[in-house]
Amino acid sequence: MIPTVSASASSSFAPLIPSISTPTHAPSLSVGKANSLSFPSSPKTSRLSPHFSSLRSPLPMRPPAAVSIEKETMETERPDTFLRESESGEVRVRFEKMIRDAQDSVCQALEAVDKVGKFKEDVWSRPGGGGGISRVLQDGAVFEKAGVNVSVVYGVMPPEAYRAARSASPDQKPGPIPFFAAGISSVLHPKNPFAPTVHFNYRYFETDAPKAPRQWWFGGGTDLTPAYIFEDDVKHFHSVQKKACDKFDPTFYPRFKQWCDDYFYIKHRGERRGLGGIFFDDLNDYDQEMLLAFATECANSVIPAYVPIVERRKDMPFNDQHKAWQQLRRGRYVEFNLVYDRGTTFGLKTGGRIESILVSLPLSARWEYDHKPEEGSEEWKLLDACINPKEWL
Amino acid sequence: MIPTVSASASSSFAPLIPSISTPTHAPSLSVGKANSLSFPSSPKTSRLSPHFSSLRSPLPMRPPAAVSIEKETMETERPDTFLRESESGEVRVRFEKMIRDAQDSVCQALEAVDKVGKFKEDVWSRPGGGGGISRVLQDGAVFEKAGVNVSVVYGVMPPEAYRAARSASPDQKPGPIPFFAAGISSVLHPKNPFAPTVHFNYRYFETDAPKAPRQWWFGGGTDLTPAYIFEDDVKHFHSVQKKACDKFDPTFYPRFKQWCDDYFYIKHRGERRGLGGIFFDDLNDYDQEMLLAFATECANSVIPAYVPIVERRKDMPFNDQHKAWQQLRRGRYVEFNLVYDRGTTFGLKTGGRIESILVSLPLSARWEYDHKPEEGSEEWKLLDACINPKEWL
Repeated sequence: MIPTVSASASSSFAPLIPSISTPTHAPSLSVGKANSLSFPSSPKTSRLSPHFSSLRSPLPMRPPAAVSIEKETMETERPDTFLRESESGEVRVRFEKMIRDAQDSVCQALEAVDKVGKFKEDVWSRPGGGGGISRVLQDGAVFEKAGVNVSVVYGVMPPEAYRAARSASPDQKPGPIPFFAAGISSVLHPKNPFAPTVHFNYRYFETDAPKAPRQWWFGGGTDLTPAYIFEDDVKHFHSVQKKACDKFDPTFYPRFKQWCDDYFYIKHRGERRGLGGIFFDDLNDYDQEMLLAFATECANSVIPAYVPIVERRKDMPFNDQHKAWQQLRRGRYVEFNLVYDRGTTFGLKTGGRIESILVSLPLSARWEYDHKPEEGSEEWKLLDACINPKEWL
Repeated sequence: MIPTVSASASSSFAPLIPSISTPTHAPSLSVGKANSLSFPSSPKTSRLSPHFSSLRSPLPMRPPAAVSIEKETMETERPDTFLRESESGEVRVRFEKMIRDAQDSVCQALEAVDKVGKFKEDVWSRPGGGGGISRVLQDGAVFEKAGVNVSVVYGVMPPEAYRAARSASPDQKPGPIPFFAAGISSVLHPKNPFAPTVHFNYRYFETDAPKAPRQWWFGGGTDLTPAYIFEDDVKHFHSVQKKACDKFDPTFYPRFKQWCDDYFYIKHRGERRGLGGIFFDDLNDYDQEMLLAFATECANSVIPAYVPIVERRKDMPFNDQHKAWQQLRRGRYVEFNLVYDRGTTFGLKTGGRIESILVSLPLSARWEYDHKPEEGSEEWKLLDACINPKEWL
C-alpha cells in the first residue's frame, strides 16, 4: 500500500525522503553481517486488512517476495555537492551550500561545548542522485547523543498525493511526480537533566509536475525540550527565535510558535513533547529569496539560541531522581518521534536510511507505569507547561 | 479520520478496544493534576493532508475542539464480572472467567519467582459496560517491569471496516457494528540480560451485524524475546507451545509459529523483535468449544513455558556490556510496539487507557547510532536469529 503522505512529510530528523521505486521494506544496512545474510520475505500485509477477510481465508497469507528499492551507498569522502551534474536550479545550489555550512558550524560549536566528544561522520549517496552526510557525537562529556544530518534527495511522489492535492478527478491518473528535497536536521540530547534537548530541521522542496509550473516550498523549525523549566532559558530560546522571525515578518513568530505547539503534540498523552519554539511547513507564498534568507537566518540562530543554555546547565549537580525524570521525558520524545513525527514514520515506511532517521532517538529512555509527579513539584511544572503551552515572551 | 482497522487489531498488550463514540484524542488520565488542567484543543489534522492543500492555505488550520469520548472510571474493587447484566453469551462468560483465572495464576507464579516485588492493581470500568484489571509489578528483584492485564470491552466498529470486509457496494451504508472483546495480555521484562522477555495475549471477539448472524473469533499468541540465545531455553519454550497446539491440531504449531515470525517483524530493521513462539488471529473455522479450550490451554502454558527459563537465568552474573545489549534490544521492542503492533497503535489512536496500553514498554531502553555486533559474537548470533528465523524443534 503506497502511503498517501505528502512529500513535505519530512519534518523530522529523517534524511528527507529517499528515492523510492517501490515503497516496500528493504534490507537493513545497519546489521554487521546483514548483506551476507538472507533476508526474510515481508510479513503478511493481509493482516492489516479487516478481520472479516479471514473468515473466508483463516490461514495467514504468505507475503510476496520483497521488492528491491534503491539503497544508499556508503562513501569514503564528502563530495562537493550531492546535486546532479545537470542541476541548474539556483536555489537548490544555494540551499545545499547553506545547510552544509550550517552543519559545519553547528558541529564545530557543539564540539567546543563538549570538549571531549567528537562527531563521527558517515557520507552516503544514492545511485540515482542525492546523498547525505550524517554526523553523530555519542556519549561525549556534555552530550549523550548529538546528531546533525544533511541530505539531498531526488524522489518520486505517489500520484495519489498529487491527485488528492490538486482535487483532480479520480479518473485522471497522472504519473508519479518527481521531487527534489534538501535539508538539515538535528537532535541534541545532553546528559545533564537540567540541560534541555533541542531539535532543528530546515528543508527545501521542489516538484516537477508534468504540464505544470515547478512548485517549491520551505519548511522547518527549532524547538526546545527540557526536563526542567528554567524560565530564563526558555525566554532566551524563544526570544532568539522571535528575533530571527521578526527580521522577515512580524506575523511569523506568533504563527510559527503556535504551529510548533500544535505539531509536537503527543495526542495519546494530551501533552507536547517540550516547550516549543517555531515550526512551519509548505511556505511558498512569500518571495523565494526572502524564504531562503529566512531559513538561513533560522539555521544560524540555533547556536545562539541553544549554546548559552547548555553552557549554563551542563555542570549543574543532579541526583538520580532528576535523571529518572529526564529519562521519562525522553520516553515521551521516543513516543512522539515513532508514533507521530511525519518525517520519521514516512522514512520508516519507505526505506530511508534507518540509522540516520533514528539517530533522533535518545541514547536511553524510560517508561514507568502510571507515573504522576507530585502536584507543585518541578516535574509537575514541566508537565503542566507541556499540557498547557505558554506564551514565553 | 476514522481508522479502518479491524476490531481484531488488539493483538498487543492494549486493553483491546475502548467503546468509542468519536475517535479523537482524549484527555490523559495519567497526569496527576490533569483533570483540573485545561486541555489543549487537538492539533491541526490538516497537516496530515497533502502539502498542496496549503499552497491554497499556507496558514496552519486551527483544530476543531476536542470531542469527548467515553473514558474509563477507576474502581476501588474488582467486580465479579465486567459483562453486562443482560449478557447471555455463554462463551463470553466462560472466556472472562478463564482470563481472570489466568491473570491470578500468572501473577501468583511471578510473585513467587520475584520474591520481592508485588503486583499493584488498577481496576477500571466504562460507563457503557466493560472494564479491566491492570496489574503491574515494577522494579522487583527479578522483574524490571511485569504487566498482566485483563479487559472486557463493548465497542463499535467503524462501518468502513465492515463494508470493506464484506465486499459490499460502497453505496451501502451499514451503521456501526457493535462488538464485544475480552482478553488477557501481558509483557514480562526481567532485569537480568540473560533472562528473556516474554509476551502473551489471548482474546475473544464477537460482532453483532444488523441482519446477519453473530460473528466470533479467537486470537492470541505467546512469544519469547531474549537478548542472548540459550538454545535449551528456546527449545523448551517452543516445545511447550507445540505441545499445547498438538493437543488440538497438528497443523497449529507450524502455522502459528510461522505466523508469529511474520507478525513480530520490524520492517524498517529487517529483523524480528525476538525468537517467536505462536501467534494466530481471526480463528473461527473450528468448533467454538475447541477454540475456547485451545485458548485456555495456551494461557495455562505460559508459566510452564517461561518460569523454568527465568529461574535458570535470573541470577546469572553479567557485565555492563551485556546490560547495554539488553537495553538495545529493548529499544527494538519499543520500535515494534509503537510503530507496528496493531493493538498498540489502534489503542493510541482511539483513546484507549494509555497506561494499560503502554505498560508493555520496558522500564528502560537504549538506542546507539549504527551499532554493529562483532561477527560471531553472542550478540551477533541473536541478531542473526532475529533476521533469519529458525526452526527450534
